[in-house]
Parts: sequence; structure tokens; C-alpha cells
Amino acid sequence: MKKATSLSELGIADDMAKVFFHPIQAAEAPSPTKRRTKISVIGVGNVGMAIAQTILTQDLVDELALVDAKEDKLRGEMLDLQHAAAFLPRTRIVADTDYAVTAGSDLCIITAGARQIPGESRLDLLQRNLTLFKIIVPPLAKHSPEALLMVVSNPVDVLTYIAWKLSGFPPNRVIGSGTNLDSSRFRFLLADHLQVNAQDVQAYMVGEHGDSSVALWSSISVGGVPVLGSLERQQIAYEEGVLERIRKAVVQSAYEVIQLKGYTSWAIGYSVANLARSLLRDQRRIHPVSLLAKGFYGIDDEKEVFLSLPAQLGRGGVLGVASVHLTEEEASRLRHSADTLWDIQKKLGI
Amino acid sequence: MKKATSLSELGIADDMAKVFFHPIQAAEAPSPTKRRTKISVIGVGNVGMAIAQTILTQDLVDELALVDAKEDKLRGEMLDLQHAAAFLPRTRIVADTDYAVTAGSDLCIITAGARQIPGESRLDLLQRNLTLFKIIVPPLAKHSPEALLMVVSNPVDVLTYIAWKLSGFPPNRVIGSGTNLDSSRFRFLLADHLQVNAQDVQAYMVGEHGDSSVALWSSISVGGVPVLGSLERQQIAYEEGVLERIRKAVVQSAYEVIQLKGYTSWAIGYSVANLARSLLRDQRRIHPVSLLAKGFYGIDDEKEVFLSLPAQLGRGGVLGVASVHLTEEEASRLRHSADTLWDIQKKLGI
Amino acid sequence: MKKATSLSELGIADDMAKVFFHPIQAAEAPSPTKRRTKISVIGVGNVGMAIAQTILTQDLVDELALVDAKEDKLRGEMLDLQHAAAFLPRTRIVADTDYAVTAGSDLCIITAGARQIPGESRLDLLQRNLTLFKIIVPPLAKHSPEALLMVVSNPVDVLTYIAWKLSGFPPNRVIGSGTNLDSSRFRFLLADHLQVNAQDVQAYMVGEHGDSSVALWSSISVGGVPVLGSLERQQIAYEEGVLERIRKAVVQSAYEVIQLKGYTSWAIGYSVANLARSLLRDQRRIHPVSLLAKGFYGIDDEKEVFLSLPAQLGRGGVLGVASVHLTEEEASRLRHSADTLWDIQKKLGI
Amino acid sequence: MKKATSLSELGIADDMAKVFFHPIQAAEAPSPTKRRTKISVIGVGNVGMAIAQTILTQDLVDELALVDAKEDKLRGEMLDLQHAAAFLPRTRIVADTDYAVTAGSDLCIITAGARQIPGESRLDLLQRNLTLFKIIVPPLAKHSPEALLMVVSNPVDVLTYIAWKLSGFPPNRVIGSGTNLDSSRFRFLLADHLQVNAQDVQAYMVGEHGDSSVALWSSISVGGVPVLGSLERQQIAYEEGVLERIRKAVVQSAYEVIQLKGYTSWAIGYSVANLARSLLRDQRRIHPVSLLAKGFYGIDDEKEVFLSLPAQLGRGGVLGVASVHLTEEEASRLRHSADTLWDIQKKLGI
Repeated sequence: MKKATSLSELGIADDMAKVFFHPIQAAEAPSPTKRRTKISVIGVGNVGMAIAQTILTQDLVDELALVDAKEDKLRGEMLDLQHAAAFLPRTRIVADTDYAVTAGSDLCIITAGARQIPGESRLDLLQRNLTLFKIIVPPLAKHSPEALLMVVSNPVDVLTYIAWKLSGFPPNRVIGSGTNLDSSRFRFLLADHLQVNAQDVQAYMVGEHGDSSVALWSSISVGGVPVLGSLERQQIAYEEGVLERIRKAVVQSAYEVIQLKGYTSWAIGYSVANLARSLLRDQRRIHPVSLLAKGFYGIDDEKEVFLSLPAQLGRGGVLGVASVHLTEEEASRLRHSADTLWDIQKKLGI
Repeated sequence: MKKATSLSELGIADDMAKVFFHPIQAAEAPSPTKRRTKISVIGVGNVGMAIAQTILTQDLVDELALVDAKEDKLRGEMLDLQHAAAFLPRTRIVADTDYAVTAGSDLCIITAGARQIPGESRLDLLQRNLTLFKIIVPPLAKHSPEALLMVVSNPVDVLTYIAWKLSGFPPNRVIGSGTNLDSSRFRFLLADHLQVNAQDVQAYMVGEHGDSSVALWSSISVGGVPVLGSLERQQIAYEEGVLERIRKAVVQSAYEVIQLKGYTSWAIGYSVANLARSLLRDQRRIHPVSLLAKGFYGIDDEKEVFLSLPAQLGRGGVLGVASVHLTEEEASRLRHSADTLWDIQKKLGI
Repeated sequence: MKKATSLSELGIADDMAKVFFHPIQAAEAPSPTKRRTKISVIGVGNVGMAIAQTILTQDLVDELALVDAKEDKLRGEMLDLQHAAAFLPRTRIVADTDYAVTAGSDLCIITAGARQIPGESRLDLLQRNLTLFKIIVPPLAKHSPEALLMVVSNPVDVLTYIAWKLSGFPPNRVIGSGTNLDSSRFRFLLADHLQVNAQDVQAYMVGEHGDSSVALWSSISVGGVPVLGSLERQQIAYEEGVLERIRKAVVQSAYEVIQLKGYTSWAIGYSVANLARSLLRDQRRIHPVSLLAKGFYGIDDEKEVFLSLPAQLGRGGVLGVASVHLTEEEASRLRHSADTLWDIQKKLGI
Repeated sequence: MKKATSLSELGIADDMAKVFFHPIQAAEAPSPTKRRTKISVIGVGNVGMAIAQTILTQDLVDELALVDAKEDKLRGEMLDLQHAAAFLPRTRIVADTDYAVTAGSDLCIITAGARQIPGESRLDLLQRNLTLFKIIVPPLAKHSPEALLMVVSNPVDVLTYIAWKLSGFPPNRVIGSGTNLDSSRFRFLLADHLQVNAQDVQAYMVGEHGDSSVALWSSISVGGVPVLGSLERQQIAYEEGVLERIRKAVVQSAYEVIQLKGYTSWAIGYSVANLARSLLRDQRRIHPVSLLAKGFYGIDDEKEVFLSLPAQLGRGGVLGVASVHLTEEEASRLRHSADTLWDIQKKLGI
């Protein structure tokens, strides 16, 4: 791909730099490449670019690589970010249609995906996405064999499974953004209602991203104070129906944004940048993300499905899965999602 | 406008908050409203939202208000930002089609503007923008009589003049984003060529934003080392033609992004967030922005035109205009732009 | 007090500034003074300076004022901070022995205090501190009648009561740093043990700062997962004695630092900067701080004592006290501390 | 050295962690150790700790190691930083009297140094520092053979030479903090006088740190506008004497802080953290630091002296030396310092 317009191309003498700096003898210098933190974002649509820009603003990496099949759009987005150089710490921003540009990434984030054609079945759509991922994942794995892999494209749980299979990576290095954003929406709704800071609200949505996600009521606390327990002690009963209405409001809020502005971008951008930080800076924080869930919470060991569970994330990827208490109802929903996903995956033939 | 979906709307009891917090006696508490920092962004297109999101990520304000005529898009963008609450410091994010939502702003940023219809003359387009600004500016000035006003919409210089006239504000409180971003692009191109950090490159584009902008060669320095002087001392002559090629590359780079991705967004977002910071945190930094230029550099005192000049910005808006050395050629171009703009403005009948 | 050495004092012409900037007409400009965020720190010992420097690094204020009785030390600390100007956002740093320098503060932080003389009784020490606070608090209240007041000096609970009485402020505007740092030490010990991020650990120490503080076991959770509940479910019994050993380790860790390095500074600096942020940026986060505790958790309404309880903090100071569940044992310890403090306060004659 | 008090030592069962997290199969996980950014600070006095704490607050590293000969003080400082865990991103903080704790550092910062005994000659003091550096530098070089080395101890120029010789490192990987802080003080004085942001002032002090430092008048600019040129154009003559008075004020300001508070700490802390950032995040910014100066500006190629010159810093250490224009007078002072230092170094017998 053509490089960004540079002064060299304009016939501006390259010896200008030599005028400014005397060279220095630098035998045995540590290779900067080896110690760089690099993230690659695949797909420069609204989601991919919101992620890339938020990562850039938060000064998380030394190098950012963008890949997309649309050459013009890709180059336009790269230049637009580069033009902000004077307002940001120095970061190398590169872009190419060729995956070689991602070489040596610490984290690869896949946001590319096929969109549903009206009338298309869920399975047909998945088959098209499988075809797409066969183009994306193997070269990523080849160029960055030690990278962490994060899938953001939907349906996120099945696509994370596909990415895992195609990458040949161990499961701790492949996650999906899953219900991390759903959980943030859940926390926002509760924080807004209680007039507190959302960062003081602990609340998880787990399981399958989308309509069947499971809200973990027992885990909701505000500043460490369990909510349901508090209500009980003060003899305020929250009926089953109320809780389910809240869960549906969370699920609905994503659809609402899509219906209103056509897509979601900012919140998923912050959500993924937040995960990237926990991973690359080895923060060991707990986030609900889509991970290989077999064997947890009674999910059959044979069913290699990815579902969101609260996990501890660090430089090694998924470091552990938190032992959250699930009611039998919650665990049952989780297992039901596992069965559904497993059935679909078997039909995909991967 | 309909409020964001909240739990109250869902019939979730409002007394939940009371369960968590004992009220506290708070006679004579300082009013939080009075000490809040608030920015309003008018227009939630690609530019407006890149600005709003960058301001949010950089934790610059306590309250962010969005205004647009398109109710659905507006509400969608507000919700998308709000859903990121768990990843950001607590900021109040509001949106409405009614300008009352901007009340008490410290800074109002106008990004709305009419787009050119194929075949439309520059003057006809300006007339339509004048009509639009008559809807936008007076209510902003009414609801935030002490605010600073920044125009980002294009053609930025004439529209900043229009905003100034319509607001009735003193000139130090009305600026246009002008050539601040052009200067960043200039610095990026030079930094990329010299392999240095763009933050160490001082370089200004001034005058009219767009094709007629003026590159101030004598002001270019790298880490405080004047570039042209260095070249001269080492007897490397830079011909007139080379410098003009660099200036054109800067101007061209904006068109290139528009041609490739359809619009510019990220760089202007960072550029305006950077200006907002200098203004609201009283940083007294020097930025080239569009300001009332009459009387400076030989521009006629009668010609009330806005042109970009390096200015010191702080909580009071424009605090002073830097005395940069201009060659006669550069000053002459500046005066020519002033004449052109003045002629156009007279035809607008404002 | 003598101003910092400036070029004017050296006979350097003041018209240099005029050479650089053309003045701008600025009628009706918003007064920057009124919108500034200002913090004053009283006492520039190790604790006061760690607080001041952390606040500065975190870019929390536009103006920082330092007050101390020792003129030389005070001026030295001010200059040392000012010399870092090139590495920090522009912040006005002022210092004086006269409290007039604190005028218009949003938050005043008192770190000054008399040290115990060997053989001195607790009551005699308090009397000397009372005398000192009579010099400090009234001028602070006079110069910043709408400020929030935070006491860091020890014994923090009684001194916060004294500051409250001397200021005449409503109770929501007077807090003590209390057990906020003890809670951080508690969270660090648990996080270190569990190999998680301390920011994911919720755990409170409440009550009287120091030996009698109360650890709220039922409130401990990791990423929202209650710890004691988890242990119980897995039939791992934690004996009373173990929990008390952990509490004592937290209390002991402060003494350990003092014994090893002679004082504590860094952790209290971060702790207070964290509280300052929640207050001034209206974050509404929950922190255990010393506040007027009468009427809460069965503390007698007549006993005007300050004790640490988890409170929601915002621009208005204490916005509410969280309804944490206390065991009868815990509540009883709290009431016992209240009785002890009340007895002492009565003897002080304030 | 004894580890920080941990719950394990208290007999708290280690299986608590297992209760919280299910292990995850993690074959072939990328080794977090290899990708960590680590800084070691040698010497935990006022300067060393101000550096360590500022680096921590600015979230620059994943691991921070402290070394000192005084075991108690060292452990106290480590614990004090660790106790702030809840207020900071997760960073591993370790400390030991044994240099093995520094293994794998990306940057080692030496702040330890012998203090002058009354009546002691400059050469005797240097001999004692040489003895000290023989204890410090070889183990640092052994445990982190690819690290960058920065000397902060005074007299910084000779000690940086000593560290270079003892380390066996190539010269681009060994620098002294040199006049980076003097330059910041210079910029502060000018910015304060001109009422501008110090970050917009470019100004260098170069040469030998201390009384003989050289102020580069021709390099002073404000927002890219050369100061002396501006004054000349407006026919304001600045006499030689005035400029020398300003230079002396800069040199004097360090002594003033030492005289007033007994030592300097905050400004050097920010200055070194700033250098660390440019180095480790490969910022390629220009800073005046002490580097192997032979061959530059007419300094004799045989004289292996370290002097401060404006250099471009990045992950590889010193990347180049800027070609600043020096007057003959300035270059002559530089060569004089080189001669003086070379004479001293020859007497040291290293």
C-alpha cells in the first residue's frame, strides 16, 4: 500500500534530518522493536475506529496497526489519526491491506464481520463469517504467534470459538469482548438510578452476548454493599419480574442505540480499550469476557463453547475464572446457551 | 426530548437509593452547578462527535451537552456515550434539541453547518449558513452569556465573524478553530520527515483556513533550533519552490482525507479538545486560531475580518496575539485574504 | 512573604512581555479567578508535601496554595514545585505564612499538628493541638467561607471535630481523612494475598482511626464477589481469630512504616489526592472518611463525634452515608469509640 | 531482605485465592516478565524517592525496584508506596539491598552518592564516589546487561563518565540528568516573566551542570518565536550583562532551594520521570542531558568527557545530538569545561 504522503515523495531533500542531528555511535543498542507494545485492529468501520482512537487517546501503545480490505477508507483513517500527532504522545501508526503490517503484535483485535443480508439465515451468515475469518485469523496468527487475540465482531461467542480454532492458540490467549459492554450498560443503569458513580457499582451480565445474557443478581453491590441483601434486610422485596425487566432494559439499550444512530461505536470503543489495558499492562482485573467455558458452572466438558464469565485478565490473557455464586436458574440458563452454541458450531463444520 | 431510558421509567422503585444512603444535613452547601465546567457541542455529525468523545476521554469537563436538530441521531449518540460510564470518570452527559440544555456553558463549540449543494455558489452557501447560525448563536448567547464561543464549521473564518456578530460577545470570547489543525498537519509532516516528535516541532500555518493559508517559514524550529537558519549556516539553500510545495502538501492532506474516507474527524477532534483545554484550564498556551484580525500585521482597522494568528489562549479567551515576524510576502498574503473575506462579508448583509 | 525570585527583581525589563504579545480588547471577559479550582494545603511537612505534589501531578487544580509557619522551608518547597513548570500543565503555585494566600479555596487540607512530647498525656497533646487549630481554622474559614475542609492531622477524629466547631461550617463540609488510607492498606493486603488488583477489592475499615478501627468483614468482596459468603459456601471456615489477625496487620502496617522510615508520606498523599478528586470533580464515589457520626448505627444523637463511615463524596462534601450492614459486635465497637471520643472532647472545653 | 508483611506470614491460608479463581490451562502463554517495563532506582533518599513516586504516579512502568544500603529505610519506603495500591494502576513494587532485585531492568537510575565532608577536597569526594560506584554499577550492568543507565548523583558529569567506564556499556546507553532540570528552571523563569506557559518556552542550559553551565541565548524562543531576534527587530537591546544575570539566577535557584529546605527533590523528580518517559516510550524528544561529548562543538576527540548537550532520546538511549548554533563564546566555555573535567578524570585513575 502507498505510504502516507511524505516530504520525501515531494522531492524534499532527505538530508534535512542530518542537518539537525549528529549521528551517535550506537553499537549494541537494545532493539526498540522488541520492547514496543503493539496493537493491531482488523476492520476500520465505526467500531474498529472507535477502538483505535480510544486506545490512542489513552496512550496505551507504542505502535498501532490498522488492517482492512478497503484501501481508500483504510488510508484515510490512518492519515486522519496521524494528523493529530502534535496533540498526542508519539505513537507509530501504520496501515495496510497486507497482514504483514501486524507483525509482532501483542494484541490483535478483530472487528471485521459480514453483515446480515435481509432474509439470510443465522447459519448462512455464520458460514460467510467463517469464510471471512479464514482470511483474517491464520495470517494474524502467523505474523504474531505470541499475541493475544480478541474478537469483537458479532455473533461474538461463536466467532471467538472460530478464531480460537483457526489460530491454533491456547484458549487463555483468545477472548471475545462478550458481555463486558453489557455489564457496563447494566452498571450505568443502576448507577444512574442510585445516583452513584458507575465505577462503584459491581454488576455482571454473563453468558451469551445478546438476548439470552444472564444478569447475576447476587453479585450486584454498590461500593461493596450487596444490593439484594440490603433490600432484604430492610424487607423490600424485589420481585422476579422487576429484575427481569431491568435485564431486558440492558439488552434493549444496545438495540436502542443501533435503531437511533444506526450502529454502536463509542461505548464498545471504551470497553475494548479497557480490556486492552488490563491485558497489556497486566492489571489482573476482573472482566466478564467470552472465554472457553467448558467445565465451568456445570457446562459439559465436551462442549467447546465460548461464553462470557467474569475472568481475571493479565499479560498472559485469561488468568483465571472467578467463582461467582450462580443460582440454579442462572446456571441452567448458562448451560442452555452452551447447548445452543454447541449445536450451531457442529453445523459449521470447523 | 425524551430522557434516557431509566429504571424509573421501567417502574423500578425510586426508593432503592434511599436504601443505600442515609441523607445528610447539608444546609448552605456550595452549589455544585456553579463550579462545574461545562462544554456544549452543537452538531453531532462526525466532527461534533469526535470532539465530544475526545473531550470526554481527556476528562476535561463535569458536564457535556449535545444539541442537534435530528432527535434520533442525537439521542443515539448520547446513549452511546453514557453506556461507557463504567470506563470513565463520572461526567454528566445531556442532549436535547432545545438550546436550554446548554445553559451555563463555559464553552460552546459549533460544528453544525450547511453542506454545499452541487452547483451552489460560495455566496449562496454562506447565506444558508447565515440562516442556520441565526438559529444557533442567539440561543447559545442567551443561555450562556459568559461563555466562550468556538466555531469549527466551514468556511470557518467567515462563520466565526458571523457568530461574533450574532452573539454580541466581545471579540476575545469568539474564536474559530482556524488553522490550528493545519498547523498540526504541518508539524506532523516535518516531524515525520525529520524523525522527531511532532511536539518538539514549532511551525505555524496562519491566515485564511484552506487554500490561501500562509506557512510561516521563519517560525519553524525543532526543539527550539530555527530550521531555516540552520540550513543557511550549513549552506543548504531551500528554494522558494520547495517551501511552497511543502505548504501545498499540508493543504492537500485535508482534501486527501476527505477524498479517501469521505470526511475528516479524528484530527479535528483532538485539535479542538486541545484548544478547549488551553481555554478552560487557563493554560496560556499559543495556538493559531481564527480571531478578529483587524489592526494586526497591517490589516485595515475597518475590516472586521477573522483570520488565524498565533494567539495566547486562556480562561478569558484570546489573551493576546503573538508578534511573529512575517516577511513582506507573508504579510501581503494575509492582507489579501482579509480583503477577500471583507468583500464577501459585505455581500452577506449582516 | 518575599515572592519567588523573578526576573523583574533582577532588573530585567518588564516590557519583554509586551514585545511578544499585542494586547487584545477584552471587555466583559469572564473572570478567570471565579472559575479556578483552588486547593490550599496547611503544613508543608512530609505529609503536606506528598499531598501537594500528588495533587499537582494528577492535574487536579488550577491553583495550589501552601501555608506554614516556617518561612524558609515553605519558600523552598514552593520554589521546588515551581521549578517543575516545564514538566507539568500550567498551575499557579503560591505560598505564604499569611492565610490570605488561601482566599477563594475550594478545598482546604490541614496537615499541621503538634507532635507528642515524651511523657506528655494524650489530653495535653490535644490541648496544644486545639491551640494550634485556633490559629489555623478561623482564618481559613474567613478567607474561604464556602470551602470544603479536610483534616489529615492526628488524632484525626478529634481534630476534625475541633475544626468543625472552629469553622462554623455545616457538617457536610468538614471531613477527616480518617480510615480511607487504612482501608487502602486493608485492600492492598487482601489483593496481594489473592493476587488480584487492589482496585477490584472492596473492603472497609471504619470507626476510629488507629488501634480501635473496625474491619467490616461482611463488606469484603473481590470484583463484586462477597468473600465470606464464598468461603462459607465452600465450607472453609474463617475463625474469628484469623480475621482479627488481619485487622491488626492493617493497623500495624502504619506503625511499621513509621518505625522503619520515621514517618508515612506517599500513601497518605495518594489517599488524600484521591479524596480531593472525588470532592472537587463531584465524583459521588464512596470513601470511608471521618464525618459527624451522631445518629448513625446507633450512636447517640447527643454525642457530636466524628468517626469514619463509608460516605458518598461530591462537590457538596458528604452527600450521604452508606447503609453498610454491621454485625452487633461491629456496631458495639463503633459506639464504644464514640463514647471514648465524646469523653475526651468534653474535657477539651470547646 | 524480608518481604513485605503478607497475610501468608500471618498464617492466613493461601488457599483463599483458589476459592476465588478456577485455574485456567495456560500452555505456551507469553511470558509476562519478558514484556514488562521495569525501572530500578538506586538510593531511596529524598531525590530517589521523589523520582520513584513521580514515575509511579505517571503510570510509566509495570515494575519498580528500589535498592539502598539502609535496610530499614528501604523497606519503609517500599511499604509506603505499596499501601497506595488502591489508588494506582497495579504496579509491582519490590525493594532489596541485593542488586538481584534489579534484574531485567529497562532503565537503572542512580541517585546514591557520597556527601561532601567539611574540609574535604573535590578530588577526595570524587574518590569516595568512585568507590561507591564500583559497588553499584557492575552489579547493575550484570543483572540488566541491556538496560539504559541514568546518573542523577552529583557531580553528575564526572559520575556519568565513571558509570559509563564501570558499566562497559556503549555511550548511547549511559546519560546523566545533567542540565535538564537547569533548563526547566530557565524556562520557568522566562515563562513566569512573560506570563506564558513554560511548555511553550524553548530554552537550553548546556555544558557542565552547576556554576559553569552555558545558557544558549540564540535558542530561546516562545511558541517558536525567537526571543533575541524579536527584541532586535524592535530595537530593544539586551546587554551582555543582563543575559548573564539571568543565567546566574537559574544557577542560583538550585542553591536557593537547598539553602531553604535543605535539599531539592520535587523538580528533579519530575525532570527524571520526564526523561524516563522519553526513553522508555521511545518519544524521540529533545532534552539537554549529560552525554559523551567528545567530538561535538570542537571538543577534542581524545577527551572522553560527559557534558550536557541537547539530544534526541528514545528507546535506544541517545539517538543523536542536536546541531544547535553556538556563539564562539559559548563553544569556548564548553571546551573549557571539557578541559577541566578531563583533568579531574585523569587524576581519578579510572
